[in-house]
Amino acid sequence: MFSPLIDELMQALRVLPGVGPKSAQRMAFHLLEQERQGALQLARSLEKAIDGVSYCNGCRTFTEESFCGICRNVKRDGRTVCVVESPADILAFEQSGSYSGHYFVLHGHLSPIDGIGPEDLGIDILESRLAQGEIQELILATGSTVEGEATAHYIAELGRRNEVTVSRLAQGVPLGGELEYLDGGTLAHALNSRRVI
Amino acid sequence: MFSPLIDELMQALRVLPGVGPKSAQRMAFHLLEQERQGALQLARSLEKAIDGVSYCNGCRTFTEESFCGICRNVKRDGRTVCVVESPADILAFEQSGSYSGHYFVLHGHLSPIDGIGPEDLGIDILESRLAQGEIQELILATGSTVEGEATAHYIAELGRRNEVTVSRLAQGVPLGGELEYLDGGTLAHALNSRRVI
Ligand SMILES: [Zn+2]
Ligand SMILES: [Zn+2]
Repeated sequence: MFSPLIDELMQALRVLPGVGPKSAQRMAFHLLEQERQGALQLARSLEKAIDGVSYCNGCRTFTEESFCGICRNVKRDGRTVCVVESPADILAFEQSGSYSGHYFVLHGHLSPIDGIGPEDLGIDILESRLAQGEIQELILATGSTVEGEATAHYIAELGRRNEVTVSRLAQGVPLGGELEYLDGGTLAHALNSRRVI
Repeated sequence: MFSPLIDELMQALRVLPGVGPKSAQRMAFHLLEQERQGALQLARSLEKAIDGVSYCNGCRTFTEESFCGICRNVKRDGRTVCVVESPADILAFEQSGSYSGHYFVLHGHLSPIDGIGPEDLGIDILESRLAQGEIQELILATGSTVEGEATAHYIAELGRRNEVTVSRLAQGVPLGGELEYLDGGTLAHALNSRRVI
């Protein structure tokens, strides 16, 4: 109905999560009417990020370097590895100021119904690092959802097989809640009260 | 906190209406994790639209041509001009199937408090076209909000000064409602019952 370039832009905007036809139309008109410079900046930022950002070779968080700032930081203790579902969870831990170990980012959780198995989450990489013997404790900080719990159980089993201490965040993480929305205090408490499983 | 390219992408996404820091983060991770091709397509579509799309020389709707498809259509009656706030309103009229004249898009409404005057809405262009004498009727289809009514009154005055019939959409447009969300039937009724003012 609109001109081809506008129709194409509206269609392209729908790649964003939660953006349906009406939102896409509103976004396209807003950009064209009021944010032309901002729209070009967005285009450049998208290209740079897609071109430059991949997974950290250490922890699998997003980074444009071979290793992220946390993995490169020699003051951090690589013997403790905190396993999280999302890079956003790292931010939550760092803001709580209560953790100085390393991380491992799954970018999701086990979900057989969606065809997401251990290798899709890099768990094979984690397993080979466990076999190398440098990791002494695995803190499982996946969400307290059904899938998050199942993922934690799966990784806990790998940890035990490799004679590594495996812990889970203590009570304090709300049931069904998402880690990245937790306040720092609650997260610090849950971390300090973690229990060996 | 995140790597520079990701921080930059999150910042750039906030140019989109209704997107705050949390939404921008969710969008950035979603694109990087699952929609890399879609993100590149979005970047290209943004560049093409910003580069190619401007206002129709006839009606000021968005188009990449000098004149939009409606203004170029010789079957449409240029003696009747329907004045709307947004290109989305044109879509609503066209879908109602009850209008075969031309349009004029304001891209907003008069809003002295935001410093938006007649020339920001192209009303000076409309005025010079009224003076040329080809337009016989102006249908004022701005929203039934306070600003939409004020804008309609302002343009009605110009129309009367140029001895043009000026009408306003009939009752049927919900008070305070936005035109683009109206169903075609209601809009067709409002158009057919329009009253001269
Ligand atoms: Zn890393
Ligand atoms: Zn036009």
